[in-house]
Amino acid sequence: MTKYVYDFAEGGRDLNDLLGGKGGNLAEMAGMGLPVPPGFTITTDACRAYLRTGREPYGLADEVELHLERLEEQAGRRFGDPDDPLLVSVRSGAKFSMPGMMETVLNVGLTDATVAGLAARTGDEDFAQDCYRRLIQMYGRTVCGIPGDAFDSAGSSVQRHKAIFRQYTGHEFPQEPREQLDTAVRAVFDSWNADRAVLYRRQERIPSSLGTAVNVVAMVFGNLGADSGTGVAFTRDPATGERGVYGDYLADAQGEDVVAGIRNTMPLQDLEQRDQASYDELMSIMSTLEEHYKDLCDIEFTIERGKLWMLQTRVGKRTAAAAFVIATHLVDEGVIDLDEALSRVTGTQLAQLMFPAFDLSGGAPRIATGVAASPGAAVGAAVFDSHRAAEIAASGTPVILVRRETNPDDLPGMIAAQGILTSRGGKTSHAAVVARGMGKTCVCGAEELEVDLDKGQFTTNGHVVSEGDVISIDGTAGAVYLGTVPVQPSPVVRYFEGEIAPDADPLIRAVDRILRHADDRRRLAVRANADTGADAARARRFGAQGIGLCRTEHMFLGDRRTLVERLILARTPQQREAALAELLPWQRADFTELFREMTGRPVTIRLIDPPLHEFLPPLEDLAVRVARAEERGEDPGHDRDLLDAVHRMHEDNPMLGLRGVRLGLVIPGLFAMQVRAVAEAAALVPGSRAEIMVPLVGAVQELETVRDEAQRLLAEIGVDARIGTMIEVPRAALTAGQIARAADFFSFGTNDLTQMGWGFSRDDVEGAFFGRYLELGIFGVSPFESIDRDGVGRLIRIAVAEGRAARPDLHIGVCGEHGGDPDSVHFFHEVGLDYVSCSPFRVPVARLEAGRAAVESTGSDTR
Amino acid sequence: MTKYVYDFAEGGRDLNDLLGGKGGNLAEMAGMGLPVPPGFTITTDACRAYLRTGREPYGLADEVELHLERLEEQAGRRFGDPDDPLLVSVRSGAKFSMPGMMETVLNVGLTDATVAGLAARTGDEDFAQDCYRRLIQMYGRTVCGIPGDAFDSAGSSVQRHKAIFRQYTGHEFPQEPREQLDTAVRAVFDSWNADRAVLYRRQERIPSSLGTAVNVVAMVFGNLGADSGTGVAFTRDPATGERGVYGDYLADAQGEDVVAGIRNTMPLQDLEQRDQASYDELMSIMSTLEEHYKDLCDIEFTIERGKLWMLQTRVGKRTAAAAFVIATHLVDEGVIDLDEALSRVTGTQLAQLMFPAFDLSGGAPRIATGVAASPGAAVGAAVFDSHRAAEIAASGTPVILVRRETNPDDLPGMIAAQGILTSRGGKTSHAAVVARGMGKTCVCGAEELEVDLDKGQFTTNGHVVSEGDVISIDGTAGAVYLGTVPVQPSPVVRYFEGEIAPDADPLIRAVDRILRHADDRRRLAVRANADTGADAARARRFGAQGIGLCRTEHMFLGDRRTLVERLILARTPQQREAALAELLPWQRADFTELFREMTGRPVTIRLIDPPLHEFLPPLEDLAVRVARAEERGEDPGHDRDLLDAVHRMHEDNPMLGLRGVRLGLVIPGLFAMQVRAVAEAAALVPGSRAEIMVPLVGAVQELETVRDEAQRLLAEIGVDARIGTMIEVPRAALTAGQIARAADFFSFGTNDLTQMGWGFSRDDVEGAFFGRYLELGIFGVSPFESIDRDGVGRLIRIAVAEGRAARPDLHIGVCGEHGGDPDSVHFFHEVGLDYVSCSPFRVPVARLEAGRAAVESTGSDTR
Repeated sequence: MTKYVYDFAEGGRDLNDLLGGKGGNLAEMAGMGLPVPPGFTITTDACRAYLRTGREPYGLADEVELHLERLEEQAGRRFGDPDDPLLVSVRSGAKFSMPGMMETVLNVGLTDATVAGLAARTGDEDFAQDCYRRLIQMYGRTVCGIPGDAFDSAGSSVQRHKAIFRQYTGHEFPQEPREQLDTAVRAVFDSWNADRAVLYRRQERIPSSLGTAVNVVAMVFGNLGADSGTGVAFTRDPATGERGVYGDYLADAQGEDVVAGIRNTMPLQDLEQRDQASYDELMSIMSTLEEHYKDLCDIEFTIERGKLWMLQTRVGKRTAAAAFVIATHLVDEGVIDLDEALSRVTGTQLAQLMFPAFDLSGGAPRIATGVAASPGAAVGAAVFDSHRAAEIAASGTPVILVRRETNPDDLPGMIAAQGILTSRGGKTSHAAVVARGMGKTCVCGAEELEVDLDKGQFTTNGHVVSEGDVISIDGTAGAVYLGTVPVQPSPVVRYFEGEIAPDADPLIRAVDRILRHADDRRRLAVRANADTGADAARARRFGAQGIGLCRTEHMFLGDRRTLVERLILARTPQQREAALAELLPWQRADFTELFREMTGRPVTIRLIDPPLHEFLPPLEDLAVRVARAEERGEDPGHDRDLLDAVHRMHEDNPMLGLRGVRLGLVIPGLFAMQVRAVAEAAALVPGSRAEIMVPLVGAVQELETVRDEAQRLLAEIGVDARIGTMIEVPRAALTAGQIARAADFFSFGTNDLTQMGWGFSRDDVEGAFFGRYLELGIFGVSPFESIDRDGVGRLIRIAVAEGRAARPDLHIGVCGEHGGDPDSVHFFHEVGLDYVSCSPFRVPVARLEAGRAAVESTGSDTR
Repeated sequence: MTKYVYDFAEGGRDLNDLLGGKGGNLAEMAGMGLPVPPGFTITTDACRAYLRTGREPYGLADEVELHLERLEEQAGRRFGDPDDPLLVSVRSGAKFSMPGMMETVLNVGLTDATVAGLAARTGDEDFAQDCYRRLIQMYGRTVCGIPGDAFDSAGSSVQRHKAIFRQYTGHEFPQEPREQLDTAVRAVFDSWNADRAVLYRRQERIPSSLGTAVNVVAMVFGNLGADSGTGVAFTRDPATGERGVYGDYLADAQGEDVVAGIRNTMPLQDLEQRDQASYDELMSIMSTLEEHYKDLCDIEFTIERGKLWMLQTRVGKRTAAAAFVIATHLVDEGVIDLDEALSRVTGTQLAQLMFPAFDLSGGAPRIATGVAASPGAAVGAAVFDSHRAAEIAASGTPVILVRRETNPDDLPGMIAAQGILTSRGGKTSHAAVVARGMGKTCVCGAEELEVDLDKGQFTTNGHVVSEGDVISIDGTAGAVYLGTVPVQPSPVVRYFEGEIAPDADPLIRAVDRILRHADDRRRLAVRANADTGADAARARRFGAQGIGLCRTEHMFLGDRRTLVERLILARTPQQREAALAELLPWQRADFTELFREMTGRPVTIRLIDPPLHEFLPPLEDLAVRVARAEERGEDPGHDRDLLDAVHRMHEDNPMLGLRGVRLGLVIPGLFAMQVRAVAEAAALVPGSRAEIMVPLVGAVQELETVRDEAQRLLAEIGVDARIGTMIEVPRAALTAGQIARAADFFSFGTNDLTQMGWGFSRDDVEGAFFGRYLELGIFGVSPFESIDRDGVGRLIRIAVAEGRAARPDLHIGVCGEHGGDPDSVHFFHEVGLDYVSCSPFRVPVARLEAGRAAVESTGSDTR
C-alpha cells in the first residue's frame, strides 16, 4: 500500500518529489539531530490522489492518526487536551517554491475547551486568546473562503470572531481538533488548483501534475515574552557574498510579524547579548548546515522561552554578485571544486552584472524600495494611465508607467513604457510577469508609494511626483529615485574592456576565475555578430573566437543609402551595374577592416538579406507627401519616383517575400558584387579567414546556383573561402540532408526560424497579442529570447542530425540572437553545435553558459 | 563484369531503366517477332560510367565490336564495306521521354569510300549523296558543335559540306566508320548534360543521375522511291478514343520529313491501295501490339521498297476525353479490369474535361493552331510587348501576350496576361514552362503566325491582328481564334450538375463509370470547402461527403462589412459587445443554411482567421484621402477614424501576426459569438453535424483555452460538436503529439503551412521571383498548387504519426487548396489522412485521384 505520511525522522531532502522542498529539508535537519519541532509530512502522492478523485485516498486518515499519536508522544502533549493541548501548523510545500501561492493555517487544535489549557500552560491569557483569534481568521479564510477583511471589525474579541465565522459559513467554528486538521489539509490540497496557483505554474512552466505536500508541525511560539523571539538568517551575506553570518531577529514575535515589517528588527549579532546560549547554538547549527549543504543556507528559527527551534532551511537566494563571490570562496575553502562553482552561477546572473547601473555618486535621492521584478535601469516621465503613457511615448518622451498594480488593460502602456513601477504585488504579479516576459525593467510592490490615480501623482516619504516628473527605477535592486540618475558601465564590463584588472576586487576576481574555467571546459566555440571594425574589436576583447555573422546590409545605411536607392531605381542593366560598381569599394573596405580586426579567426559574411524596400522611405509617408504636393499643385519630383519604386517593390508580407537568396537570384550582379568584395578584401589581409553565408535558403537548388557563381569568382580572384548557408526557413531544416550537399557550414538563423515556425513576427512580441499570451501563461518568455525547444528546437535537431549524416564534416553554428541566451546555449550544446554567435556584449554570457553546459553533461563530453 | 550492350533480342521493356524507353520497346517488338531493323542498345550504366569518369568504361569498346559484328551478320552487310555498306542510326533514349532534348545522328558509316557502295546498291546516286550530306550536317552539329545554320550556304554539294566541316573543326570529316560511331555515341552521352537537358530535367524533376541509353540501329530508308515511305499511326483515335486505326503516311520520305510537315501526308487508310501487303502486315502488327501492350499504341514505321520496318512503338499519348473512353472500351473488350481503367486516367485529365471550353457554335474563325502548352480558355487584347501588356492589364483590360518566343524579360507581361501565345517553341519552351508553372493558359509554337514586333501585329492566313485586337486562345486544344469566343460549361460539368444523363455519350458514360468505381475503391473521404448554401448544394451534387472548411470570415463581407467596422472601431467593452450581438444572428442564419444543405454530413466551421484590418480600407488609400482633405482644409471625418484604426491594427507582416486563434484570445467575445452561432444553428437543424475548427494554433495551450470556453458554451446550449484545429503553423505540426491531446480532429491548412514552411507568401507566386525560379528550374510547379513532399509534406507526416500516436482516434484531413490537386491527393492517401476537402469544382478530381491512389497502393489498403 502506498505510504502517504512520513515522520520528519523518516524523510530527507532526497525525497523532495514526495515531501516538497519544505518537508524534505525539515526532515533533513531532523536527521542531522538539529532541534526541529516534531511533525510529519503528508505526501504529494496523497494530494494527487485527492485531486484526482475528490476525496482523501484510502488509508490516509489512519496514517495521519498514527503519526499524530507519535507526534503527541514526541511533543509530550495531546491534541485536544484541555489541560495542555498540542497545537500544530498546517503548511503547504511543493517541490518547486511557489511563494505566497498556497495556504497555511497556524494554531490548529485550539477550541473553546483547549484555549484555557494553553493559557494555563503559558500563563498568558491574552496570548492564548490571540492565538485563538488568529486560528479563526486563518481557518475562516483558507478553509471556508471568508474574505480577508471580514474580521477587520472584530477587534480582539474571540466571540466576535466566532460570530463573524458563523455569519459567513452558517455554522459554528469547529470544536473538534481532528476536524480542524483534516479540513485544513484538504484546503491546502485544494489551493494547488486555485486560479492564481494555476496561472503561476503555467507562467513558470511548473507541471500541474506535481501536487503539493502538507507539513503538520507542532507549534512553537516566539511571542511568549522577552525570552522568546523569531528570526531569519543567512550563513553568508546574500548581497555581497562576503563570509560571515547575516540576519535579523525580532524578540517576542512570530515569523509573520517579521515578514509584515511593522516592528523594527535587530541585527542577529545583538542576540548574543540577549541570549548567549541560543546564539551559540544557532551559530553552531548554521555552521553545520553550511557544511552539510555545501552552500549558503538561509534559515527561519524561533526561540520559545530560551529554547531554539529550527523552522525552515534551504539553499539561500543571493544576488548575482554574491553568487560569483560565494562560489569562488567555497572553492578556496575546499568545499567544492571549480566545476561545481561553475554550475552554481548562471549566465543570467553574469548578464545582470553587465547591465549598466545607476551612477549614485551624484547622490540621487532614493525615494522608495520595492521588489526587483525585472532587471535593468530605466529613466522616464512618470505617467499614471496606460493610454496617456502610450500617447506620450509615441511623441518621443520616454515614460515610466506607474500604477497601483497592472491588469490586461494596461498592456498598451506597458508596451510603450521604458519601465514599470507598481506599489503592490510581488515577483509573480501581472506587472512583474509581463515585464519579465518582455525584457522590460520593472520594480513592483513599492509599498511606500501612495498612488493617487485621480490626481495623477504619487507621494512617498514626503515627495510628490506628478505626471511628467522624471523618475529612475532600478529593476535589479528594486530602487526608485527622483529625477534622472545617470547610468554608468558596470565594473564587470570595464574589466572585460581591460579598464579594470582581473584582481581588482572579490567580484572581478570571481568572475575572471570562473569564466576562465568555463573556457577550459566548454566544447562550444563562441563567436560574435559584428558588422563594423569597432564591434569586431570589442568582440575580441570580450573573448569572441571569430565573427559568426556580419550583416552586410548594415553597410548600406547612412550616407550609402543613396547608392542603394540608385540600385533600386535602376531601370536598365547599365544603371544597375553602375550602382553596383559604386558599392563595391565600400563593401571591400568594410570587409578589409573586419578581417584586420579578426586576423586568424573566421569571419562569416552573410550576403544581403532584407527586402530592398527597407532602404526606401515608408509607403504611407511617400504617398501622403506626393498627395499633399499634388493637392497644392506642386510637382512631387523625386518623391514620385520613389513612390513608384516603392509601389513596384511593395509586398504585403515582406518577411515572406523577396529577400535573401531570392534577391540574389533575381537581381543580376548583386551577390557577385558582394562575393567579389569579400574575395578582394580577403586577398588584401594576410591571415584572413572568410566564410560566405547565403541567407534564406529553402531548397538546395538555390544554394547550388549561388555557390557555383561564387566559386567561379573566388577561383578567379584566387581566394579560398568556405561557402555555407543560414538555416532559417523551416523547409531548410526539414531538407537539411539535401542542403548539406552544397554547404560547407550551416548557421541557424533562429530569429527567422522562430518567426516562420510559430507564424508570428518579432514585431508582435512588442504588440498586443504577446502581452495577452503572457497573461494567459501560453508563453513564460518570448520564444525570440529563449529557444522554443519543442518546436523550433526540433527543427534544429532534425537539421543537425541529417546535415551531419549527409556530410560528417559539416560545421554547424547559430547566429540568431538566441546564441547569447543562457538557456538556449545549453540547448545548442546538447544538440551538438560547433559554435554560437551573439552580440559582443553577450559573448561572456555565452562563454559561461557553454562551460556550464559542458560540465553538466557527461564527463566524456568535456575536453 | 557489367554488361554494357544489349542486342534487341536480349532486351525488353522490363529493362527500361537500363535500355531507356525507346530501346526497351524496340527490344520488346523484336522479341515479339515483329520486323524491327537489327540493332543494339548501349545501356544507361555505360552512360553513367562515362559521365562519372569522362571516358568509356572498360570493356565497352569490345562489347560494341562484338554487337556490331552480330549486327553485320543480321543485316547481311558490313560496316565500312565500300561495296554494300551497313549504315546505322545513333539515337538517344532515356528512361523518361525528353523530347528534342538530346541528340541523334543518322547514316553513320558513310564515308568517301562507302558512299559509292550505297549508290550502287540503291541505284540512286542522288539519294546516296543526300544521305552523306545529312550525315555531315548532323554529325557536325551534334558531335563537333558546328552551328545549325553553318551549312545553309552549302547547297547540295558534299564537297562544300566537307569544306565547311573542315573550316569549323580544323580537321577532315572522319573517314573511319567506327570512329564516327564512337564519337557519335559519346556525343549522345554528353548531350545528357547539355544546358537545355539539365534545365528540362530540373523543371520536370527527372533525376540527373539516370543517364541515357544509346540505340544503334541498322538504317532503313523510306525515301527510296514510290514503293518506299514512312508514317506514324495509332491503334485507336487519340483524339476521341473511338475504335479504329488512325494515322498518316508519306510516300518516298523519311521520318523527319513527316515531322517537318513540309509535304502533305495521306491518311493511313490510303496505303491500302498503294501497297496492300504492307498495309495488311501493318494492321496485323498494330493489332498484335495493342493486344500485347493492352493499350493504345502509337508507332513509327518505314517501308523500304515494299518491306515494312517498325522503328518505334510506345503506349500512345491521347486527349483527356480519349483516355476515359479508351479505358472503358478496353474494359468492355475484356482486356483490362476497372481497377486498371481507373489507373489509366488522371485527375488532371478530368480537370481538363471540366474546364469551360469555347463555344464554337457561333462559328468563330480559327486563325492558327499551335501546341497545347497549358490548358484553359483565355480571351483578351493582343499585346506584343511585355511592359505594354503589364500597363494595359493594370488598367483593367484583359490581355493576351503575343511573342515569337518569351524570355526572362517577358515575366512582367506573362504575369499580367490572361494567356500567352507564341509562334515558336514547344511544350518545353520558356513560355510553356512558365505558363504551366503559373497555371496560365498558353498556346505556343503556332508557326502560322508571322509576328512583327516592330509593327505590333501578327498576320496569319490573311488575318492581321494588331495591338488591342481581341483574340481567344484555347490552351487545351492549341487553337487560336479571332475575336471574343464565348465560353460554355463543359458537358462533364453539366453531367455533374444533373443537366445531362450519365449515358448521354461515350465520354459521359466513361466518366460516370470510372468515377463510380473510384468511389468504391477510395479510402479517403472527399469534402468540399464551401461558405454558402449554394456552394454547399453544388458540392453535394459533385459528390462531396461533407464540408471540410467553411470560412466564417467570408460571411463578414458585403453589407455586413459595416458591422465588422463597428467591432473594430469599438473602444469600450459595451461597444464591442453590441457589435458582436449584431453579428450573431447573421452568422447563425448562415450556419443554419449550411447545415440544411448538408444534413447528415459533417460541416467543419473554422472560427475567424484573417487579420481584422483586412476588413478596413487599405492604409495608403486612407492616408492619401485624409492628407488631401486636410490639404484642402476640410475635415476628413470618418476617414480619420478609420485611418486611426488602421494605424492601430497595422502590421508589417499581417500573415505573421494577429490572426486566427490569437485574435480569438485577444478580442473578448469574438470566438464565443461564433461558437454560439454554430451551436444555436445546429440546435435548429435536425441531423446537423457541426465541427468547430480553431485556426492558426501553434501551441496546445492556445487550443485548450479556446476549447474550454467553447465546450462550456456548447454544454449550455445542449449541442454536441467536435472541436479540432487547423495544422497550418509549422510548430503545430512539430508538436502535434501535444496538440492532439486537446483536438478531436486535425485539418491541415497546407496554404499557410507552405507559406511558413518555405518563408514566402502566396502573393509571391504571382510576383517576379517565382517566375525567375521557374526559369532556373528551382520549381517545376508552384508549391501552393502541388504539395512539396520533402519539406511541407514532411511536416504533415510528422503530425499524422505523432497526432495518431497520442490519440489513435484522431480524425485527420486537409482543407488547403492542395486537397483538390491530383498529385497531392496521392500524397494525402499515402500518409493516411481520413479525408481531403477542396473547392466544389475539384471534388470529382479528388474522388478520382483518391480512387486511383487506393488502387495503386497495396490491395490491403482498399476497402
